[in-house]
Amino acid sequence: ARLAHAPETSIASLLASLQHFAELDPTVLQAVAAHAVRRAYETGQVVFLEGEPCAGVHIVERGHLKSVRTSLGGREQVIRVVGPGELFNEVSTLVERPNHVTVIALEPTVVWAIPSAAVRTLLELSPALCCVIMRNLAERLLYLVDVVEDLSLRSVEARLARLLLEHSSEGALERRRWTTQGEMASRLGTVPDVLHRALHSLADAGLIEIRRQQICILDRAGLENRALSDK
Amino acid sequence: ARLAHAPETSIASLLASLQHFAELDPTVLQAVAAHAVRRAYETGQVVFLEGEPCAGVHIVERGHLKSVRTSLGGREQVIRVVGPGELFNEVSTLVERPNHVTVIALEPTVVWAIPSAAVRTLLELSPALCCVIMRNLAERLLYLVDVVEDLSLRSVEARLARLLLEHSSEGALERRRWTTQGEMASRLGTVPDVLHRALHSLADAGLIEIRRQQICILDRAGLENRALSDK
Repeated sequence: ARLAHAPETSIASLLASLQHFAELDPTVLQAVAAHAVRRAYETGQVVFLEGEPCAGVHIVERGHLKSVRTSLGGREQVIRVVGPGELFNEVSTLVERPNHVTVIALEPTVVWAIPSAAVRTLLELSPALCCVIMRNLAERLLYLVDVVEDLSLRSVEARLARLLLEHSSEGALERRRWTTQGEMASRLGTVPDVLHRALHSLADAGLIEIRRQQICILDRAGLENRALSDK
Repeated sequence: ARLAHAPETSIASLLASLQHFAELDPTVLQAVAAHAVRRAYETGQVVFLEGEPCAGVHIVERGHLKSVRTSLGGREQVIRVVGPGELFNEVSTLVERPNHVTVIALEPTVVWAIPSAAVRTLLELSPALCCVIMRNLAERLLYLVDVVEDLSLRSVEARLARLLLEHSSEGALERRRWTTQGEMASRLGTVPDVLHRALHSLADAGLIEIRRQQICILDRAGLENRALSDK
């Protein structure tokens, strides 16, 4: 990772733009900013590895990253995709354990890292920061419960339908460079050929149209119906 | 649910015995205790339903309960099994939304409920309580990431092997009345007949022995090996 220097105001304004963080006292925001280190990563670069000593809390300035778990056989499950303004690795920091996931840049990315020790000092100084982190964790927990429900009770086709509905805007999902079928598969807990079949099954049913740069939703009600179907 | 009256000291001593809670100031413990309502449930009774207005934070005094999500077709995924000393429903309380799971008693159970409004007041008054809840959420998040990895990357047999290893003591898993194969299946994200096959496959391989009251681990190393196998 390159150290990417920038004026301190840019992390302060980034923090101020985050959900919940905006409510924090400016002096707390400044204390967070003072400890943050800015780093740039290229596509595919590893930010940190599961099992390594805790890398601290990270905040995304620009770009997208994925956090993953990998099986012994090398299959990958995407736990989460994070983008601008999102926090990651608070959990490992709070429980004072090694990183619990591996994080990889999906495209050129800039993140701010706050070392674990600094985070813990800040939390002791600011009950308001505790509340911010607590609410962030609660939101992520709800998301993970949805993922568990999806993996357990829904078909790949239903999961795919939900992913398309949740990530589309104005009836289309823009295909970023990194939204390959491999990435989508490991996000949905399946393998690329199963995902491929699910995509084409939705297309054959006239619910979506697969284009080079985007996937268009042709029949939103039909797709919502598929998203609810059981395994 | 029956209201089960008991001296205030019993919730205070319950709280004091909880992980993290023991560090709290006695006045905070007393404030929590003052808001707690004790309730008793029979086997199979619903404590609260997903989607209902938030029922507040619950603490288990005695017995076991399951929190579940249910598919439209009626299939059930156990999100978590909670037992004595454990908290549940903090998440819905924190995000101020309806209950995100349905909770059902697996056996005769006694729980303490603290209404949402009281929880929020207490959190504002006690940064230490925020920290306790925050660390609890972090632990649960780690657990859910493990569940996602398991559901996505591991076979039912591997998940079963891990469940047996994690819940056995002295080489045996006591079969509580509620540990039916149906319950184990919905905990492992599968259906009873697949679980049945996985159990007997582990038994045929000489790794476990299935008895009426317990499942004995005959070959721990072999079972650990199965727990790591990919899908």
